[in-house]
Amino acid sequence: MNILVLNGPNLNLLGTREPAVYGSATLADVEALCRSAAAALGAGVQCRQSNHEGELVQWLHEAGAEHRAGRLAGVVFNAGAYTHTSVALHDAIKGTGVPVVEVHISNVHAREAFRHRSYLSPVAAGIVVGFGIEGYRLAIQGLVHKAAHDAPRPPAAG
Amino acid sequence: MNILVLNGPNLNLLGTREPAVYGSATLADVEALCRSAAAALGAGVQCRQSNHEGELVQWLHEAGAEHRAGRLAGVVFNAGAYTHTSVALHDAIKGTGVPVVEVHISNVHAREAFRHRSYLSPVAAGIVVGFGIEGYRLAIQGLVHKAAHDAPRPPAAG
Amino acid sequence: MNILVLNGPNLNLLGTREPAVYGSATLADVEALCRSAAAALGAGVQCRQSNHEGELVQWLHEAGAEHRAGRLAGVVFNAGAYTHTSVALHDAIKGTGVPVVEVHISNVHAREAFRHRSYLSPVAAGIVVGFGIEGYRLAIQGLVHKAAHDAPRPPAAG
Amino acid sequence: MNILVLNGPNLNLLGTREPAVYGSATLADVEALCRSAAAALGAGVQCRQSNHEGELVQWLHEAGAEHRAGRLAGVVFNAGAYTHTSVALHDAIKGTGVPVVEVHISNVHAREAFRHRSYLSPVAAGIVVGFGIEGYRLAIQGLVHKAAHDAPRPPAAG
Amino acid sequence: MNILVLNGPNLNLLGTREPAVYGSATLADVEALCRSAAAALGAGVQCRQSNHEGELVQWLHEAGAEHRAGRLAGVVFNAGAYTHTSVALHDAIKGTGVPVVEVHISNVHAREAFRHRSYLSPVAAGIVVGFGIEGYRLAIQGLVHKAAHDAPRPPAAG
Amino acid sequence: MNILVLNGPNLNLLGTREPAVYGSATLADVEALCRSAAAALGAGVQCRQSNHEGELVQWLHEAGAEHRAGRLAGVVFNAGAYTHTSVALHDAIKGTGVPVVEVHISNVHAREAFRHRSYLSPVAAGIVVGFGIEGYRLAIQGLVHKAAHDAPRPPAAG
Amino acid sequence: MNILVLNGPNLNLLGTREPAVYGSATLADVEALCRSAAAALGAGVQCRQSNHEGELVQWLHEAGAEHRAGRLAGVVFNAGAYTHTSVALHDAIKGTGVPVVEVHISNVHAREAFRHRSYLSPVAAGIVVGFGIEGYRLAIQGLVHKAAHDAPRPPAAG
Amino acid sequence: MNILVLNGPNLNLLGTREPAVYGSATLADVEALCRSAAAALGAGVQCRQSNHEGELVQWLHEAGAEHRAGRLAGVVFNAGAYTHTSVALHDAIKGTGVPVVEVHISNVHAREAFRHRSYLSPVAAGIVVGFGIEGYRLAIQGLVHKAAHDAPRPPAAG
Amino acid sequence: MNILVLNGPNLNLLGTREPAVYGSATLADVEALCRSAAAALGAGVQCRQSNHEGELVQWLHEAGAEHRAGRLAGVVFNAGAYTHTSVALHDAIKGTGVPVVEVHISNVHAREAFRHRSYLSPVAAGIVVGFGIEGYRLAIQGLVHKAAHDAPRPPAAG
Amino acid sequence: MNILVLNGPNLNLLGTREPAVYGSATLADVEALCRSAAAALGAGVQCRQSNHEGELVQWLHEAGAEHRAGRLAGVVFNAGAYTHTSVALHDAIKGTGVPVVEVHISNVHAREAFRHRSYLSPVAAGIVVGFGIEGYRLAIQGLVHKAAHDAPRPPAAG
Amino acid sequence: MNILVLNGPNLNLLGTREPAVYGSATLADVEALCRSAAAALGAGVQCRQSNHEGELVQWLHEAGAEHRAGRLAGVVFNAGAYTHTSVALHDAIKGTGVPVVEVHISNVHAREAFRHRSYLSPVAAGIVVGFGIEGYRLAIQGLVHKAAHDAPRPPAAG
Amino acid sequence: MNILVLNGPNLNLLGTREPAVYGSATLADVEALCRSAAAALGAGVQCRQSNHEGELVQWLHEAGAEHRAGRLAGVVFNAGAYTHTSVALHDAIKGTGVPVVEVHISNVHAREAFRHRSYLSPVAAGIVVGFGIEGYRLAIQGLVHKAAHDAPRPPAAG
Repeated sequence: MNILVLNGPNLNLLGTREPAVYGSATLADVEALCRSAAAALGAGVQCRQSNHEGELVQWLHEAGAEHRAGRLAGVVFNAGAYTHTSVALHDAIKGTGVPVVEVHISNVHAREAFRHRSYLSPVAAGIVVGFGIEGYRLAIQGLVHKAAHDAPRPPAAG
Repeated sequence: MNILVLNGPNLNLLGTREPAVYGSATLADVEALCRSAAAALGAGVQCRQSNHEGELVQWLHEAGAEHRAGRLAGVVFNAGAYTHTSVALHDAIKGTGVPVVEVHISNVHAREAFRHRSYLSPVAAGIVVGFGIEGYRLAIQGLVHKAAHDAPRPPAAG
Repeated sequence: MNILVLNGPNLNLLGTREPAVYGSATLADVEALCRSAAAALGAGVQCRQSNHEGELVQWLHEAGAEHRAGRLAGVVFNAGAYTHTSVALHDAIKGTGVPVVEVHISNVHAREAFRHRSYLSPVAAGIVVGFGIEGYRLAIQGLVHKAAHDAPRPPAAG
Repeated sequence: MNILVLNGPNLNLLGTREPAVYGSATLADVEALCRSAAAALGAGVQCRQSNHEGELVQWLHEAGAEHRAGRLAGVVFNAGAYTHTSVALHDAIKGTGVPVVEVHISNVHAREAFRHRSYLSPVAAGIVVGFGIEGYRLAIQGLVHKAAHDAPRPPAAG
Repeated sequence: MNILVLNGPNLNLLGTREPAVYGSATLADVEALCRSAAAALGAGVQCRQSNHEGELVQWLHEAGAEHRAGRLAGVVFNAGAYTHTSVALHDAIKGTGVPVVEVHISNVHAREAFRHRSYLSPVAAGIVVGFGIEGYRLAIQGLVHKAAHDAPRPPAAG
Repeated sequence: MNILVLNGPNLNLLGTREPAVYGSATLADVEALCRSAAAALGAGVQCRQSNHEGELVQWLHEAGAEHRAGRLAGVVFNAGAYTHTSVALHDAIKGTGVPVVEVHISNVHAREAFRHRSYLSPVAAGIVVGFGIEGYRLAIQGLVHKAAHDAPRPPAAG
Repeated sequence: MNILVLNGPNLNLLGTREPAVYGSATLADVEALCRSAAAALGAGVQCRQSNHEGELVQWLHEAGAEHRAGRLAGVVFNAGAYTHTSVALHDAIKGTGVPVVEVHISNVHAREAFRHRSYLSPVAAGIVVGFGIEGYRLAIQGLVHKAAHDAPRPPAAG
Repeated sequence: MNILVLNGPNLNLLGTREPAVYGSATLADVEALCRSAAAALGAGVQCRQSNHEGELVQWLHEAGAEHRAGRLAGVVFNAGAYTHTSVALHDAIKGTGVPVVEVHISNVHAREAFRHRSYLSPVAAGIVVGFGIEGYRLAIQGLVHKAAHDAPRPPAAG
Repeated sequence: MNILVLNGPNLNLLGTREPAVYGSATLADVEALCRSAAAALGAGVQCRQSNHEGELVQWLHEAGAEHRAGRLAGVVFNAGAYTHTSVALHDAIKGTGVPVVEVHISNVHAREAFRHRSYLSPVAAGIVVGFGIEGYRLAIQGLVHKAAHDAPRPPAAG
Repeated sequence: MNILVLNGPNLNLLGTREPAVYGSATLADVEALCRSAAAALGAGVQCRQSNHEGELVQWLHEAGAEHRAGRLAGVVFNAGAYTHTSVALHDAIKGTGVPVVEVHISNVHAREAFRHRSYLSPVAAGIVVGFGIEGYRLAIQGLVHKAAHDAPRPPAAG
Repeated sequence: MNILVLNGPNLNLLGTREPAVYGSATLADVEALCRSAAAALGAGVQCRQSNHEGELVQWLHEAGAEHRAGRLAGVVFNAGAYTHTSVALHDAIKGTGVPVVEVHISNVHAREAFRHRSYLSPVAAGIVVGFGIEGYRLAIQGLVHKAAHDAPRPPAAG
Repeated sequence: MNILVLNGPNLNLLGTREPAVYGSATLADVEALCRSAAAALGAGVQCRQSNHEGELVQWLHEAGAEHRAGRLAGVVFNAGAYTHTSVALHDAIKGTGVPVVEVHISNVHAREAFRHRSYLSPVAAGIVVGFGIEGYRLAIQGLVHKAAHDAPRPPAAG
């Protein structure tokens, strides 16, 4: 069983970006945590980060194809700022049918009002918010559990 | 290490209430899952359910006292409908300083607009949404991890 | 055939509360009217009043069980102020599947804006507004007619 | 005692229009039900339907004159779509002082947001919603009861 | 010089409709006042009233043709309730280019919020509000003055 | 195959009304264009125009009956100002199930905010905006194509 | 009979300020027109202009005293920009009970949205908009007519 | 003369709850202050606290009966979070007619937007905000003054 | 210890202005009440009233200087209509750091919606609403108590 | 005459993405249809698809240059999700002056509220919605007609 | 070339007012900086400050006259709180046609929501925000550059 | 001292794009102006333009690293359309801590409402709007002044 971990814009700054909000762990730390969390469940992970909305859309398309081919359980996705502005990512998730668990390191609901709206949430297979980078581990566990217990979701759902 | 699992209004209906949304597990199943999840981490759980906002407020007060006394790691809380209407629960969490992980079985962001607002989220120590009852296990894991790594939160935070 | 008549907060004040709005009949008068109206249709009624949101939630749960057991046609419910603020009552009606006819003595749409929104209406089996206490009789008639003509509503409806 | 039953736009389609929402009874069935319900109370009914807002306004004017002359108890009015858009009907009801009971076959509060606002409700003598065509019978009963117990409403009320 | 005085829905009720708001003068009184006011300025008036939005649209079309033919100075128009809901009347005024003075007997800005919006005002040649029926005289004076001093307005204006 | 072309309020002014917005073609030109466009596809058209909302509702009812009888492919409808205010037309389209293609000559989205909302769009079989009168031809082509390829839409759709 | 004509901020610029909107007449021209219009009715006028909200408040206080003393029929008031922002002027009119006719030279409803709200309108004795400076004459006529026909308004009205 | 001092949800936490906002005094301190303040005015106080909305509603009912019996001057009420969410308390105050002075320890207008709306304020006999616990003394003084100078308020007021 | 009592626009009308809302006491009565209330606490008061926003700003500046010099405890301020519109007064209070107790004679929350917003409240040291002119006494008591117990507030607070 | 057909994010998924909404045709099918439709009118088409907002912006810039050089009639553009979020595409269309016909396969007005707003519509040369992929043919026809009849639009229009 | 530097309400407090926001420079420092910045460009400045909206309006009128006479390049204007509330200043700028550069010392967009709206911005010749008092120098440079390169703006612009 | 000048989407069109709004200077002209303005202050500039949101995010990341290394004073940034839609750019500025001066050539506050909101402004070190391309010079001056006088801003600011 494989999992794709996607990180969106500015998450490559982790460790230097607003440590009071995001902590001191780097993106490499997050990816190591994900590999470790997945390995503990017998799963593999691939990690990617992009600041480009279009590239994230395309990676979801590829994940959808992998998922339909039975080679990918789903995606753990911290879309960063695009969470709040991207209908394209919403459509990519709904259009491919790949299960996506939405993750946020900080508690977005305790921050600016424009961070309270998520275009991903209505089409997410699960949402984990505010646990710091530990949230990635919870998301992987939730995704693996879902993959083991649910029938594959058809691409037209949502 | 002990954890309090609180369930709010209508969650005693689990298993019979809208199975397409909430699944067929009962509240007893949820509580068994919680005990099992906590035991796997060496923790104990106490489970309570109430349909009364005021009673939930009081249980949070007691949890706050237990937490300050070092006998309770925190609360896993599915406040059901009161999530969306109760400033009193918001104040009880903020006022006691007890760490509270907010849980929802269904994906509230894919439902009616009045379920998109949570008075608990801005003061939650973490949020887990849409994983079905498996979300309780993730919440317990997140809470235990937080208790093991964070210093106690002072009561005036928020 | 049995019917439960539920009255919510402040309706125990009937007769003394704002007579220009609510009239001079007391809650006892309302309950007598309900018994009389039901008896004329060969039905029995049980009447309860509570100022506690949680208690009303629980009574709806009990009504749901009675309804599923074929012992209760449904509920005539004047939720008073909770009409406008209680998602918990919305969920209790939807979650139990018991038919609920919503009643208001005064014309709530001719009063303050915050009385124009009802959380009960979207899940109500019928709504009767502004006929004074005579509205309870109409609600009972409507409920009995529905019970006689409709198949039982499954708990997941709404 | 006489009653005018007014049906607004598209209600001539009853029976063929969205049966899942409006049922299979035709407008003729509704009018027969009204005649029967009124006869049971010793009252007569006249039934009219129009798709023209202006014609409905004029019929209310005539009803107002009949009411002031003591020949009409009031109007049972399903204004259909004009419920949600017509200030002119609001003014006609308020301006003539004729008692009008507002009826809706479907539960408008469980449908699109633009059906939640009624320009008739603030000036209605009573409101019956969501009982299917049985609601016309309840409306007639409510109107007859009101006519028997209330003093005539002066034209400037509202 | 000729003037068309148009009155919209429910204005045929004048004298009986809410005298506390609209006064005791009848529509015939208003029309006599208009004739007198116009005659004092050497102008003639034609008076029409309709409860039909479509009929008022058509009369504006005819007025537009008369105006372009140099036989009509413009229209004094109390559109009643349609003021607040009719884009069609807005378009008819803008599309014909006939000068229209908007009149309201009562002070609509001191009444319900839905009377504060006028679809006519943005395309009106002048607005007179709250003077009782005397407002018609002021509107006629204003229209005559405008006709004497302004060049004809082309049909595409607005 | 036959098509009904409906034009709503003020479209009889075409050619004289705001030529900068609507162009110089008259309604007769539009109807000739429609006949020519339909003839090119082997279809016949009937053209009607009304300034009355109620009359347009009724013509849709007749069109619905013709459509169910297999004698009418559908309706090309420029509802003019009623587009933005008429729930009755929305209901007539939904209630009859006749396919309706919505047309606007001008680009309504580049004009006043109140022209951005269409009550017809959610129940339209297709929408053509901003091509001038050429849009009628596109609408006819789209409607004919739909009629040739789709199964008849049942009346409860929408 | 005397009338006070008040002009608010920027009206001293008349003649040079945006002539396309306000015309080429100066404030002196306006005041001459007012004197002429009043004289034709046998009334006298006093004219004042201020750019200070507080000064306008005070002049209304003085006008109220004059009115209660029977020496002033009322005020013709073009409050300019303060129309849209001044609760203090609203309170001054309501608090003194002096009849105030609101005047605007341009059609404020055809301009920016922030000019559509008037704090004066709900307490105005009449409103005249969009007739250019001729509106002052209409306002004086309306005020004189009102003074001749109405009983004095008590200070608590509105 | 007697006064009831009611404290709502979470006020039993006083002294430990967010001392930066609420200060270090406990609920016992508040109640002692109230007794002292009342005694200085020759009045007695009874103090109650509840986290249950329904219980607060009932205490207001009892207070209303005491007030009508001439045994209670009124209520000093800090409804805490229910201030912002409870229509039931609004109705209880309006329905019983008992004078209620609303108190808040902190300056709610300098905090979250959801604390800016009070359902109690429109029916309060007076409001005291932001003086810390000293506000209870001011509220008692204001209530005693009102009781000494005003006639009893009838239950239908508001 | 000295206190400045500021009254804003239209408060010079007290006694004649809307007695049903504001009572029959005059501004002189209010100022006498303030002197008496302060004297009872061993404090002196200076009273000023202005209808000019700018003058009130300047008096707050002077009060700020007096407060920093230790000669003024603070300000009791009824800003009247400017309460709802003046950011300048908000800034003057925040910028000078002088403690200001906001007072309203009437219950502004039971009146028009535009009176529900106060620009002063977020920077007020306390708020007293709806006690009639007795509210000034409560405000003075609250201000004196605060001056005796609090350290001086620095000018940058808020 | 040449036409550019642009497809935006997720349209490369056509055929697999939500077939109930978008149908079973693939992007290759759409492009073949476009070539065929253009060929029938003697025009050529170039087809491009991108998931990158910035790339679409650049292609519009190139199209603008081609258009100004007289080598491109315009663009048929289905911007997918960017329709609802991209001011950059709005600016690119307005800034280049190239005629753009907006196309949507599904009826966006019958879907989520966030799909009702289009940043492209105000600057579109025409809009075709809800005809399935047949809409591309209509768009090409409309664009070719416009190119044949209109003078080139200057780059600053809109 | 001359420039007028206007400062609005509370800016006379500079240096003592919220130094964390506004810095420690005084108004005299600002005016010295302006003189120095202008001198470096060969221009003269006159500096004025007022807390009165009406006085600022009048100074703009005078500036307009000076500008039309060719003696004033324009105005550098920090309107303080009036920026957010004054339509009168908006009208004075638009009505006189004098070029006005809007300046704010602090970053108003990072502060309260009511500081995000500026009535001056839509009619400003340029805007400089958030550079501290250095912003005045930039504003002067921008104004001088504009005066040297632009033709005089006619009074009706905006 | 070095400065990065970033231009966002469509700014490569400068000179041909809407000259009435943006002027006739090209992007090369802007960059030459920037080099000249910086050289006059002894600083160097690097200029980049991109239509890709993600690329702009990355350039800000690089700028942040350069700034922390003491090699870059900050960024002058005209984000074009992304100003109004990009949370990612907001986060990139806040996350890197590099000082960013926001520039707009046109007066965005005098244009469409969707241009009034800037996601950059709350985290900008300064804002310059509406001076045409001269605004870049002012921005560079402001940035250089800030760099010379301020301590480096830590990355967590904002």
